[in-house]
Amino acid sequence: MVHGLCLLLIETSLAGAGTGGQPGGPGRSVRRPGRSNAGHPSDKEAGHVRESMIRRFEAVRQFLRERGMAAGLVTGPISMRYLTGWSNPSKRFAGLVIPADGEPALLVPALEVEEVRSASALRLVAWQDGEDPFAALSGMLRAAGAGEGRIALEQADLPVGQLRRIAGALGLAPSVLLDAAADLSPALSAQRESKDEDEIALLQQAADMLNPALDAALAAIRPGVTEREIARVLEEAMLAAGADGVAFETHVLFGPASALPHGSTGARTLEPGHVVLMDFGAQLRGYRSDITRTVCCGAWPDELARVYDVVLAANQAAIAAVKPGVPLGDVDRAARQVIEEAGYGAYFIHRTGHGLGLEIHEEPYVVAGNEKVLRPGHVITIEPGVYLPGVGGVRIEDDVVVTEDGCRVLTSWTKERLSAG
Amino acid sequence: MVHGLCLLLIETSLAGAGTGGQPGGPGRSVRRPGRSNAGHPSDKEAGHVRESMIRRFEAVRQFLRERGMAAGLVTGPISMRYLTGWSNPSKRFAGLVIPADGEPALLVPALEVEEVRSASALRLVAWQDGEDPFAALSGMLRAAGAGEGRIALEQADLPVGQLRRIAGALGLAPSVLLDAAADLSPALSAQRESKDEDEIALLQQAADMLNPALDAALAAIRPGVTEREIARVLEEAMLAAGADGVAFETHVLFGPASALPHGSTGARTLEPGHVVLMDFGAQLRGYRSDITRTVCCGAWPDELARVYDVVLAANQAAIAAVKPGVPLGDVDRAARQVIEEAGYGAYFIHRTGHGLGLEIHEEPYVVAGNEKVLRPGHVITIEPGVYLPGVGGVRIEDDVVVTEDGCRVLTSWTKERLSAG
Repeated sequence: MVHGLCLLLIETSLAGAGTGGQPGGPGRSVRRPGRSNAGHPSDKEAGHVRESMIRRFEAVRQFLRERGMAAGLVTGPISMRYLTGWSNPSKRFAGLVIPADGEPALLVPALEVEEVRSASALRLVAWQDGEDPFAALSGMLRAAGAGEGRIALEQADLPVGQLRRIAGALGLAPSVLLDAAADLSPALSAQRESKDEDEIALLQQAADMLNPALDAALAAIRPGVTEREIARVLEEAMLAAGADGVAFETHVLFGPASALPHGSTGARTLEPGHVVLMDFGAQLRGYRSDITRTVCCGAWPDELARVYDVVLAANQAAIAAVKPGVPLGDVDRAARQVIEEAGYGAYFIHRTGHGLGLEIHEEPYVVAGNEKVLRPGHVITIEPGVYLPGVGGVRIEDDVVVTEDGCRVLTSWTKERLSAG
Repeated sequence: MVHGLCLLLIETSLAGAGTGGQPGGPGRSVRRPGRSNAGHPSDKEAGHVRESMIRRFEAVRQFLRERGMAAGLVTGPISMRYLTGWSNPSKRFAGLVIPADGEPALLVPALEVEEVRSASALRLVAWQDGEDPFAALSGMLRAAGAGEGRIALEQADLPVGQLRRIAGALGLAPSVLLDAAADLSPALSAQRESKDEDEIALLQQAADMLNPALDAALAAIRPGVTEREIARVLEEAMLAAGADGVAFETHVLFGPASALPHGSTGARTLEPGHVVLMDFGAQLRGYRSDITRTVCCGAWPDELARVYDVVLAANQAAIAAVKPGVPLGDVDRAARQVIEEAGYGAYFIHRTGHGLGLEIHEEPYVVAGNEKVLRPGHVITIEPGVYLPGVGGVRIEDDVVVTEDGCRVLTSWTKERLSAG
């Protein structure tokens, strides 16, 4: 695999938003004049993107001003994607500097410049293999007035080794920088937790891609098929529906294996009377969907049929509880109560759900005792399950967005108790 | 996707190597008696694994004693896999504590206990959702005598936020811990750089899985096929050959797209006269192979045929230069010189290769100016390429292990200039 392209050093000005540069050849430093941005997302799309970016940056700046910090430094790939539209595909260092008063700039590996440009109109500073990115970074931080360490760092996503290198480049002792810096992580996480309209539209699209996948899987389910074959059918159908990729590793579990929530998809073959538990999702421009459906090969054994009905009732009770102002712990309670009353409480061994967005698991969590309250724009999964060791497991999972007066379910594939094969 | 299983708190004793525990149900704390380890890797395999684990731990202990540290804390998933055989699949905290004098212990999320046990015979401390893993960790560090911060931290893989939580749990100011701690990362990286026999055997197996994949792709190449279809053929064949997964995202690029080393595999369709560049690898128990072959759909256009012969000569010249005592920069030079003399120097725009092991890119790097010398046990890729914009690119990549008196090539698929379709 290729690693270590030597391209060029490009620095575009702020005025150059939307302009581009091209490699001039190995080892050369070149500044390119602007070129048209035609061929990139439509003006309307780009307008939306620009608006939401401006809003997101402004929220960071407000945090910085409140905390008396001169600049914020974003280093985590998810936050960087959230703020810039670009996600760093390599281990090479990239850092987004957001001055409390001033325009943001993105330090990127030179070989990523073209990719960044097609995702973002930010001012770029590029560093080449063989150069020290932290020297360039310290210049950017000093220019933003953060030379003495008045920086908000993304502490959940900045390795200690990089803190040391940033301190070194600023001429500070690492412990001095550590004492002076604020933590940007909780502010970014809180911001990402509430999805805007554009994000919800992407999450809806990613959820819609699950329907043809489940249709295709249902048609492929028959005795003798393997878990891996069904997983492949699901994934192919999502890609054919336009997904950029899978949201996470596809889980298909047959029969007793479905009672292991951490079992892995393998070469097991399907037998009549086995349940087929499918937990998978699609990824679209970084946003993820996440669904679980459980069907049976042939007729449902009595006990599993009963379990299915209980889990479905739990799923519906939890969804009915989702509205603004309700603590997340109450949503967990709504699902758990149905399962406990049916006598299966000991077999519902995980929380009811999690936040969903650019990460497959993110804030807020639908877990017992969580007193955080739901707000419009929260997107969560509702995924109760019952797992009978040696027999099988049933889980039914939907993606749900909190609206002004309740919620809307993004996942629309049927929850009827189905037989297949 | 399931997240947040609530299992049990298990603590096994050192004497309990190879013993197991099972979930007792939600919310219960249980200690289980030992059970037989039958069904796990063969005794001979397990013996090998144990020996190499002991060697690896001892090297860490020696580093700790030399630096006057009471304990080492490993938090990076790759190092943890290297030392324990287990890799953390989730974002939940796991930490390996290695006392300078004493037995290591692994702090893991409770829901991972069964997985860890099948990979490792280490003493385990499990934490459940809702508990604070750093409280448990501080107990382990204090027991190892590292209460005042005399810890070697894996600074390249420990977020600043976790440093703060560790300091808090030890009752230290974060900056005090930062000043007192040593950095374990370079010592681990140096250790991982030289592969032992077991590792080389795994890398050879992972490399052997590439042959049926390339055979299958060659049979599938014909005008009209898409890049994604060929990628799928490669991946299916590796999985059928026993791979645990792909080593990295499979790259298949047709025609002019092959001249973009960062182009992405897509829906392009193949035309006669297009080259087909395939860069992919297999993963086996964490170890990775990495190969690139370039073939042509139909007859090779004259210029690309000439380029192929140049790149092949560069690949062979670099491999001929690989032996103990040679600086890595000289290997890069050997490839580059062939390409420069043929007049294509400006089109070889990346380094010649990289180390290969549990990561697809790791130390040592085959890059101009690298004065580090090759040692037996180094495993590197050799992957020169020439990229003619608008025309096409040719890259030929092999995996090579340094032996006592030269090297051995792990990848064995033909490098003849082939036409297909």
